[in-house]
Amino acid sequence: MSIADRWLLPDGVNEILPQQARQVEALRRKLVDLFDCWGYDLVMPPMIEYLESLLTGTGNDLALNTFKVTDQLTGRMMGLRADTTPQVARIDAHSLNRQGPTRLCYVNSVLHTVPANMLTSRSPMQIGAELYGHAGVDSDIEVISLMLEALTQVELGQPLTLDLGHVGIYRALVEQAELQDDDQAELFSLLQKKSLTELDALLETLQLSESQRNAFRLLAQLNGGRDTIERARQALQQEYPSIATALDDLEAIAEAVLTRFPQVSLYFDLGELRGYNYHTGAVFAVYVPTFGQPLAKGGRYDEIGKDFGRARPATGFSGDLKVIAELAVDHADRRGAILAPADGDSTLADKINALRLQGERVMRALPGVDCSAQEQGCDRQLILRDGVWDVAAAE
Amino acid sequence: MSIADRWLLPDGVNEILPQQARQVEALRRKLVDLFDCWGYDLVMPPMIEYLESLLTGTGNDLALNTFKVTDQLTGRMMGLRADTTPQVARIDAHSLNRQGPTRLCYVNSVLHTVPANMLTSRSPMQIGAELYGHAGVDSDIEVISLMLEALTQVELGQPLTLDLGHVGIYRALVEQAELQDDDQAELFSLLQKKSLTELDALLETLQLSESQRNAFRLLAQLNGGRDTIERARQALQQEYPSIATALDDLEAIAEAVLTRFPQVSLYFDLGELRGYNYHTGAVFAVYVPTFGQPLAKGGRYDEIGKDFGRARPATGFSGDLKVIAELAVDHADRRGAILAPADGDSTLADKINALRLQGERVMRALPGVDCSAQEQGCDRQLILRDGVWDVAAAE
Repeated sequence: MSIADRWLLPDGVNEILPQQARQVEALRRKLVDLFDCWGYDLVMPPMIEYLESLLTGTGNDLALNTFKVTDQLTGRMMGLRADTTPQVARIDAHSLNRQGPTRLCYVNSVLHTVPANMLTSRSPMQIGAELYGHAGVDSDIEVISLMLEALTQVELGQPLTLDLGHVGIYRALVEQAELQDDDQAELFSLLQKKSLTELDALLETLQLSESQRNAFRLLAQLNGGRDTIERARQALQQEYPSIATALDDLEAIAEAVLTRFPQVSLYFDLGELRGYNYHTGAVFAVYVPTFGQPLAKGGRYDEIGKDFGRARPATGFSGDLKVIAELAVDHADRRGAILAPADGDSTLADKINALRLQGERVMRALPGVDCSAQEQGCDRQLILRDGVWDVAAAE
Repeated sequence: MSIADRWLLPDGVNEILPQQARQVEALRRKLVDLFDCWGYDLVMPPMIEYLESLLTGTGNDLALNTFKVTDQLTGRMMGLRADTTPQVARIDAHSLNRQGPTRLCYVNSVLHTVPANMLTSRSPMQIGAELYGHAGVDSDIEVISLMLEALTQVELGQPLTLDLGHVGIYRALVEQAELQDDDQAELFSLLQKKSLTELDALLETLQLSESQRNAFRLLAQLNGGRDTIERARQALQQEYPSIATALDDLEAIAEAVLTRFPQVSLYFDLGELRGYNYHTGAVFAVYVPTFGQPLAKGGRYDEIGKDFGRARPATGFSGDLKVIAELAVDHADRRGAILAPADGDSTLADKINALRLQGERVMRALPGVDCSAQEQGCDRQLILRDGVWDVAAAE
């Protein structure tokens, strides 16, 4: 094993060095405090759980993306969380079991067996918020507003675009088409991938009416500005009356977002299913021009809690704090530091303590180390003047 | 799979619910800020690394305690960190590679395959600080002082005891005894376990002089108050002159600690090797009466960086923030919250924004949810009085 090999981090795994860590830490505090002001309680789910708890109701994508290890105490399989949402759903359903609406947030590392794409890490620092116990569009509006408020406060210096979709429209089409499970899975996968040619080919092989085929083809193309909703109403609502609520909800969300965040662009994509594994209603994602993946995304998922014995409506969002920190303006407090000499009597120790209590950064020199104040990142130093310790500019 | 099985967390794995999470978060910020004031830069090493990087120079205990998974991108083995110190050593040696003394700190989850003992978790939240680039006792004094300052600031409400030892004394005895590697490993293990009877039995089988045997036997019993140093000097220094520096260092540490932290009790244990896998010099641990394991511990480890191509002297400490948070007085800011009605015009939205900007916690009611302000944890509510939104006591 060469020394260089020991330095190497696995692809898609990164470490955060001091300068970036100050930024991540500053944003972590800012966002946790923001979530708190909106009534969202911080929780810290474990890094590892039994596989059945982690993967309940989450679909196959998450299973493939989860590292598995054997519990040496029981022989059972455990997984390293690849997504915090199912853990927080378990906490809501079981550990807290509150009656009213429950607002929870988290910020922690997750691990993926393979990166989702070229731009994403295998160890994102997932930050997110979830709202349980309310099925109406108002809770979707609340979490979308919180997501946009968070990304506004971190100051990205570029315009935000909110992508809006609704899994319910796809579900309505599938229900009426009475597809086999296998066919439905393939259809979902092709729509997820937006493979229109393959989608066409698949649709030809399925037992569907021409109007049903056209509905699926149309779904893949129902995207654009606010007129998208109207196009969907005209093309689909008569044949699929159950989608009316979904479309109404999307309009209500758009209305609320435009009122509160007039600077945010809206983009509707009614066939958008990418990465929404366990979602059941409105789905949403925020983009900026300089990054090809969503900075935060989420949606409604009313089913997960069921497997923990308590089906509660739920909606929430999450993003990778490391990515957000890289794109955000610098929030880290870049103050200087004071170098204190290695030798000195108790009055020096007292002076150092007093400065640190005032929030100053004071580094004590170490005997025999020949390294200037500036080389140690200190812009000032403590010097003895007329028997009194005083802060002076670094030489 | 029954629902109850899905709730269960593996033994030694715990989740942190809102009330405790507020406390952990408050202490996390307090300690990271304290470390920063002492010049320690926060770093965030990855959760997962190639096994060779994680286990370099750390000994067998850590290897047994590390979960292993296969990297699906390369087929190489990766490990989930069981200890952050080797990662931070790699960051100092390679990623930063600074010339002068380097001070780093961290707070992150680690995972253990099996709990170290009945009292410890398999997923501690390890918090710690490390000082690189200085070999003298002054850096040991600095990190011990920082460790004691941290535990003083979290207010445990009970006296602290500092255990002090020095691996160099054991090393001096072993060197002179010219033991085989196997024998040395067994001897180390028995001393670690403090199995005096087994130690006696082993010593009888080894090719040692009577005086060498007595030295090892004595080492296991060299513990107690400050006179322990003097006992060691008288019994061992003539035969093992190299231990003089170790004993001098321990006296200097004791002197500095007593001056700065007169309320802390000192306990010397020169045969203490438990849990000090990669340590090479002074080792230390802090205890409180109500908890049977150290709250924080550490020591000097001058060798780890060598395997990363740069041997730098190093000393540091770490503890489990979850344990510290459980024992500390409550630092969480337990403020109330304000319930805002679901319906209201833009003046209500403005009022809510203004209150949140002031740092107030405001929860918006959700339509159709019948849950009183107090049931939602709100001690106040927003009401409309003469056309103006006002904060009033909750009904």
